[in-house]
Amino acid sequence: MTAQNTALVEALTARLGEGSVLTLGSDIEGYLVETRGLYRGEALAVVRPRDRDEVAVVLQECARAGVPVVPQGGNTGLVGGGVPSGGIVLSLARLDRIRDLDPVNATITVEAGCILKAVQDAASAAGYLFPLSLASEGSCRIGGNLATNAGGTAVLRYGNMRELTLGLEVVLADGRIWDGLKGLRKDNTGYDLKNLFIGSEGTLGIITAAVLKLFPEPKARVTAFVGCASAHAALQLFGRLREQAGDHLTAFEYMPDFGLEIVLKHRPGAVRPLAERHAAYGLIELTAPQQDTDLQGQLEAILGTALEDGLVQDAAISASDAQSQGLWALRESLSEVQRLEGGSIKHDVAVPVSRVAEFIETAARACEAQMPDVRVCAFGHFGDGNIHFNLSQPVGMDKAAFLAHWERFNRIVHDIVHGMNGSISAEHGIGLIKRDELVLYKDPVALDLMRSLKRALDPQNILNPGKVVASVLPQ
Amino acid sequence: MTAQNTALVEALTARLGEGSVLTLGSDIEGYLVETRGLYRGEALAVVRPRDRDEVAVVLQECARAGVPVVPQGGNTGLVGGGVPSGGIVLSLARLDRIRDLDPVNATITVEAGCILKAVQDAASAAGYLFPLSLASEGSCRIGGNLATNAGGTAVLRYGNMRELTLGLEVVLADGRIWDGLKGLRKDNTGYDLKNLFIGSEGTLGIITAAVLKLFPEPKARVTAFVGCASAHAALQLFGRLREQAGDHLTAFEYMPDFGLEIVLKHRPGAVRPLAERHAAYGLIELTAPQQDTDLQGQLEAILGTALEDGLVQDAAISASDAQSQGLWALRESLSEVQRLEGGSIKHDVAVPVSRVAEFIETAARACEAQMPDVRVCAFGHFGDGNIHFNLSQPVGMDKAAFLAHWERFNRIVHDIVHGMNGSISAEHGIGLIKRDELVLYKDPVALDLMRSLKRALDPQNILNPGKVVASVLPQ
Repeated sequence: MTAQNTALVEALTARLGEGSVLTLGSDIEGYLVETRGLYRGEALAVVRPRDRDEVAVVLQECARAGVPVVPQGGNTGLVGGGVPSGGIVLSLARLDRIRDLDPVNATITVEAGCILKAVQDAASAAGYLFPLSLASEGSCRIGGNLATNAGGTAVLRYGNMRELTLGLEVVLADGRIWDGLKGLRKDNTGYDLKNLFIGSEGTLGIITAAVLKLFPEPKARVTAFVGCASAHAALQLFGRLREQAGDHLTAFEYMPDFGLEIVLKHRPGAVRPLAERHAAYGLIELTAPQQDTDLQGQLEAILGTALEDGLVQDAAISASDAQSQGLWALRESLSEVQRLEGGSIKHDVAVPVSRVAEFIETAARACEAQMPDVRVCAFGHFGDGNIHFNLSQPVGMDKAAFLAHWERFNRIVHDIVHGMNGSISAEHGIGLIKRDELVLYKDPVALDLMRSLKRALDPQNILNPGKVVASVLPQ
Repeated sequence: MTAQNTALVEALTARLGEGSVLTLGSDIEGYLVETRGLYRGEALAVVRPRDRDEVAVVLQECARAGVPVVPQGGNTGLVGGGVPSGGIVLSLARLDRIRDLDPVNATITVEAGCILKAVQDAASAAGYLFPLSLASEGSCRIGGNLATNAGGTAVLRYGNMRELTLGLEVVLADGRIWDGLKGLRKDNTGYDLKNLFIGSEGTLGIITAAVLKLFPEPKARVTAFVGCASAHAALQLFGRLREQAGDHLTAFEYMPDFGLEIVLKHRPGAVRPLAERHAAYGLIELTAPQQDTDLQGQLEAILGTALEDGLVQDAAISASDAQSQGLWALRESLSEVQRLEGGSIKHDVAVPVSRVAEFIETAARACEAQMPDVRVCAFGHFGDGNIHFNLSQPVGMDKAAFLAHWERFNRIVHDIVHGMNGSISAEHGIGLIKRDELVLYKDPVALDLMRSLKRALDPQNILNPGKVVASVLPQ
């Protein structure tokens, strides 16, 4: 460690106390590795402040020393955004207080280190729903959800993290604090600073707290699993549901035949939901705030007509919460069981909803043309146009040999997405893993605007440097 | 006109054609005056480009000459944001094409000069709803709606302009074009540029087109006019409706006794909706996407219980579209009839919904303590916490003498709003009229961030200079 770095660690230890600054290899190991093992970073120290003012102290000291700061929440991100390459890891985990819950305003004010599940539970205890719902909800933290503008299965009805957030508290690159913790539905007093920090992956400021929206907890719920002849048929069905069920429609998830088959193969106790196999499946959920709403009847009517019209080949409607959970489990275990089928090359993309079926079919054909035995597993948030377009390796192929095609498949899939005016990162963010890919597809003027903003808010380039934007210099 | 200015006007005329550059006093007069006559500006010329590329030409020429550009849409803004003080007025009115309507994606792509009503009509013709709804919808233009993040009566259910927008096309200060016209529900590829331009009142870039969200057109609708003993009772009623009616609740507007009385006094044909007078009135609307939804029964049940519990003193529920329109007309004519009661001092503020009743009562008492005969007309978008806290002059007082108290009443009302962590501009923006007021109430770090952003995106300070942020220098 250089003398300057030693001085920084000593200064942080002096100001925050010994227990808040970790430097031992065994203490910091968990902060250096990324959840899927794709990256391993290095850091001078891991700093664990207890509150907003201590976060400000960390930024003041790091700004003075010109040393990078990499913020971390639950370290569950999928794009390497929390991996340090030198400098300080700033863990927000101890900022885990729920500061306020205002039932009449329908808002909850939480610190960045709160685990998502804890926020959901606090809302539920007050009779409200905090709708953000992700696979990692038991360990991911609100600060990370904000930094990556997290999505998940409830976006169709409630929006992503950006749309669930009313106010923020942020520590800036120089250690100043912006107090934007307002719980207002309307506020047109100047530029929208809030949305600049949300989704910026810790590169523009460190979010320490947020005011989030709550919703009436649904009192009625019905889930259906439907089999369709194609993604195009599923899209027509989605259009009908959106038109006729309106905001009762809270989820429309998609799975291909291959996806359901590997879930049934690997997941103990999983039960085939429909008698026959179908090319495409939809998982549909309707909810309502009033218990006596006849959602079952509504869904039966819509699906009945869709069956007659040939949009749906078969459908199972849940008759109980347990059945509903069983159907959801089929969808939710897909990521996990895919691992058991060998290597996979993944894409988290979005296209306009009108083109989602066309995208699935076009991209599948293109990938199969490249490698005939590749197994396309395109699933996800169909109603948002967000598909996890994953490729499972051919049976019997060497895993490493398959993964060597990563770049080529990225190019094939992302070119198709780009041609449809889509997004190469729908909900996971850019981080490290898509940083250079972004330069290939993002509007050059947009990239240049991003660099301008980065320079304006972090002139020393110490906030999570090298993530999202590779170079902060104009091009 | 200086030689340099003459050269600029000549260059613009040469590049856009004579018909697109107006300089005659009589031709440009309408662009110099603000809708309420509060300001009168001056300009070298009014330029009326026909498309995005011509807008880019205007910015290139003005950037080269270092001459300010003031964008204008329908010129219906209420804060002086479109008033020029020298330089060029850039009218977007001729960019009035609807470029695309994608029914499956539920989006419409429109140019900045489209009149709001034309966008509503185009959506409706395709069986969709574009929900933004304002008093000026027949003349305001989408570019202005975006620049001011317009609100209105449908925000409770559908959000403001920001939440209705998926993508933008923007011409930057140096004439470059950012093509962000994507119709995606999810896109986490870098910083949120879109929300930076929305609500920036033309000071960071010139929006030339947008992709907007459409919704299923409601097929069932019911409206009610309720009388309550106080704003607090109305707030309790609102909480019940939100919980029990969920997203069927599309509006909860508020009027005080004084407001209804002046509407009945001045509006020809207006009919008293309830037998008795009440301290506070709520205008409630429920809608649903399916025609056979029993909204009337749902609303009767909720209001019936509220009557029993004393939250509501009386209620009238519409039995037809005509009755519904009659109830809405009472609310919608309030701004207009207030003019007939003499001078008024206006505030467009928001507080957390939980404090909206407390705000109305506290601010009314404080203003009445200042001037016992002042007539408080606090009305508006109660369900958003957004109140138009207007003061009508005492009967018989000289109008100018009353308006001389503007500053003092601003201070009283805005101090109370600020104390409740509210906003001094909920939906109208800052422009000129609240620019200096903003400095009194906005977090200083936020103001400094705004200045940094302004310098980063408009280093020459030629985009609507002097609006929103008074000085672009750090403080």
